[in-house]
Amino acid sequence: MTLQTDFDQWSGSVCKTMEDFLQQHLPDPSIVPRQLHEAMRYAVLDGGKRVRPLLAFAAGELVEAPTTALTVVAASIELIHAYSLVHDDLPAMDNDTLRRGKPTCHVRFGEALALLVGDTLQSLAFQWLSGFSLHADPRQQLLMIHQLALASGSRGMGGGQAIDLQSTDNTLSLPELEAMHLKKTGALIRAAVLMGAECGRPLTPTEQQHLSQYANTLGLAFQVVDDVLDAEMDTATLGKTAGKDAAANKPTYVSIMGLSQAKDFSRELLSTAHESLVPFGHRRRRLEELAHFIVNRRS
Amino acid sequence: MTLQTDFDQWSGSVCKTMEDFLQQHLPDPSIVPRQLHEAMRYAVLDGGKRVRPLLAFAAGELVEAPTTALTVVAASIELIHAYSLVHDDLPAMDNDTLRRGKPTCHVRFGEALALLVGDTLQSLAFQWLSGFSLHADPRQQLLMIHQLALASGSRGMGGGQAIDLQSTDNTLSLPELEAMHLKKTGALIRAAVLMGAECGRPLTPTEQQHLSQYANTLGLAFQVVDDVLDAEMDTATLGKTAGKDAAANKPTYVSIMGLSQAKDFSRELLSTAHESLVPFGHRRRRLEELAHFIVNRRS
Repeated sequence: MTLQTDFDQWSGSVCKTMEDFLQQHLPDPSIVPRQLHEAMRYAVLDGGKRVRPLLAFAAGELVEAPTTALTVVAASIELIHAYSLVHDDLPAMDNDTLRRGKPTCHVRFGEALALLVGDTLQSLAFQWLSGFSLHADPRQQLLMIHQLALASGSRGMGGGQAIDLQSTDNTLSLPELEAMHLKKTGALIRAAVLMGAECGRPLTPTEQQHLSQYANTLGLAFQVVDDVLDAEMDTATLGKTAGKDAAANKPTYVSIMGLSQAKDFSRELLSTAHESLVPFGHRRRRLEELAHFIVNRRS
Repeated sequence: MTLQTDFDQWSGSVCKTMEDFLQQHLPDPSIVPRQLHEAMRYAVLDGGKRVRPLLAFAAGELVEAPTTALTVVAASIELIHAYSLVHDDLPAMDNDTLRRGKPTCHVRFGEALALLVGDTLQSLAFQWLSGFSLHADPRQQLLMIHQLALASGSRGMGGGQAIDLQSTDNTLSLPELEAMHLKKTGALIRAAVLMGAECGRPLTPTEQQHLSQYANTLGLAFQVVDDVLDAEMDTATLGKTAGKDAAANKPTYVSIMGLSQAKDFSRELLSTAHESLVPFGHRRRRLEELAHFIVNRRS
């Protein structure tokens, strides 16, 4: 079996486990309010690359974390991600009509319902994280909830989006752009890695520090590659509107560094991410493969 | 000291404790993203009757709950309430311009930022509930988080709003109207009462059942009175747009029962709420006073 086939099998199996959980635990559309439940499922199921869930499971491999806990953690993080996309696509924000190759949630269900879809997906993430047993020590579970709340809130993802709102037609410096993305995209990617690792045995302080560096570097790499793809690919390939940032005159790694330097930068970040994993020995394999996958993806 | 003065002093002191907590723990506007933090404070501080925090503290009196835990619980519930108002006022929802006598959050800060204010206030509620110690048993704290997530989500407040969306120009029966309000307003009021009581000694099953009946009855009474006030009062007195439901052709207790019957119904609910409290002896006093306050308020 080639390494690629092996990775594909592992990621396929992780995604299947999480999709089954989502299918089973997202409220059924037969339950009132039916349309809201239908729209919540529309926004979450069958979509995306599931990068954050894969990261949580890959980090769980470092510490022999049980699949049951990882599944809940991965699915909850994916709810937060899905809610952020639904709200981000609203007319008041990016006003986007296409997401994952389908009409966006508000195009399909109306703006008011899409607003409620985002709101209730966020609640559901915290409902799952507090309602299933994730760890023998309930304090560890409180810590994970705290971490996801911080990553989602005004000092994390939501704060990054607020900075992004104000960045249109506004030249950001490279450090400012980086600070924005560390919140906007990085915070949730970081939470996925750290929460996955928190499902198992405790990390040593050195391991904690290395994993944290991996998570930060990868969050940034993810965004740099996003900017490169946004500049290079067409809408059909991406499954979402391409060239959007340039059209909105938003600062990106490509607009600030140029395309070729942005690509070099993503490769540098990949090698930094790989280096941070060295202390974990052979258990680092899935995280290493995921970093490679994220940096070399084509959509 | 008259009973009224005594209640006013108690409620003033509870509100002061909670306002101080909010002032101190809502992110400071000097922290980036500054405008988001300013807008979050605008949406939460100096506003409203703080009914849900008062209910949490009053329920805490039944079980000798510590003020520190009650403060965090009350403030977190108030964040959820405040976020729901910000999103409810958006153009895609009620499109309202006045709230608590001030311009609504999106009128003051723009729609996109108001969307993020609601999103990040919700995250902050779960951040507080998981970040402070609320109970000697961390499992009890997980239970409270779970309860608030359920009360906020698609089977609680968010679900009630979805039903409300679809009720315009649609005649609801009285049981359907009641089912909607038990979710839309009732779920969070119920959570405030039950979570306040969960900060102290465990309730007996009988006490649990009585408190639950009190909470449900009061949630309904709150909405019936809201409908009466919406029909009777002017905008200046309410501090929010009056007559809105009639203008939107939305079913209300007044439109279905008539004004005089709706008032009678609110008094019946008050006496049911009072009866449910009997098993709690003299410790029931604040909950009794609050039921009276909620049913007899003029705004």
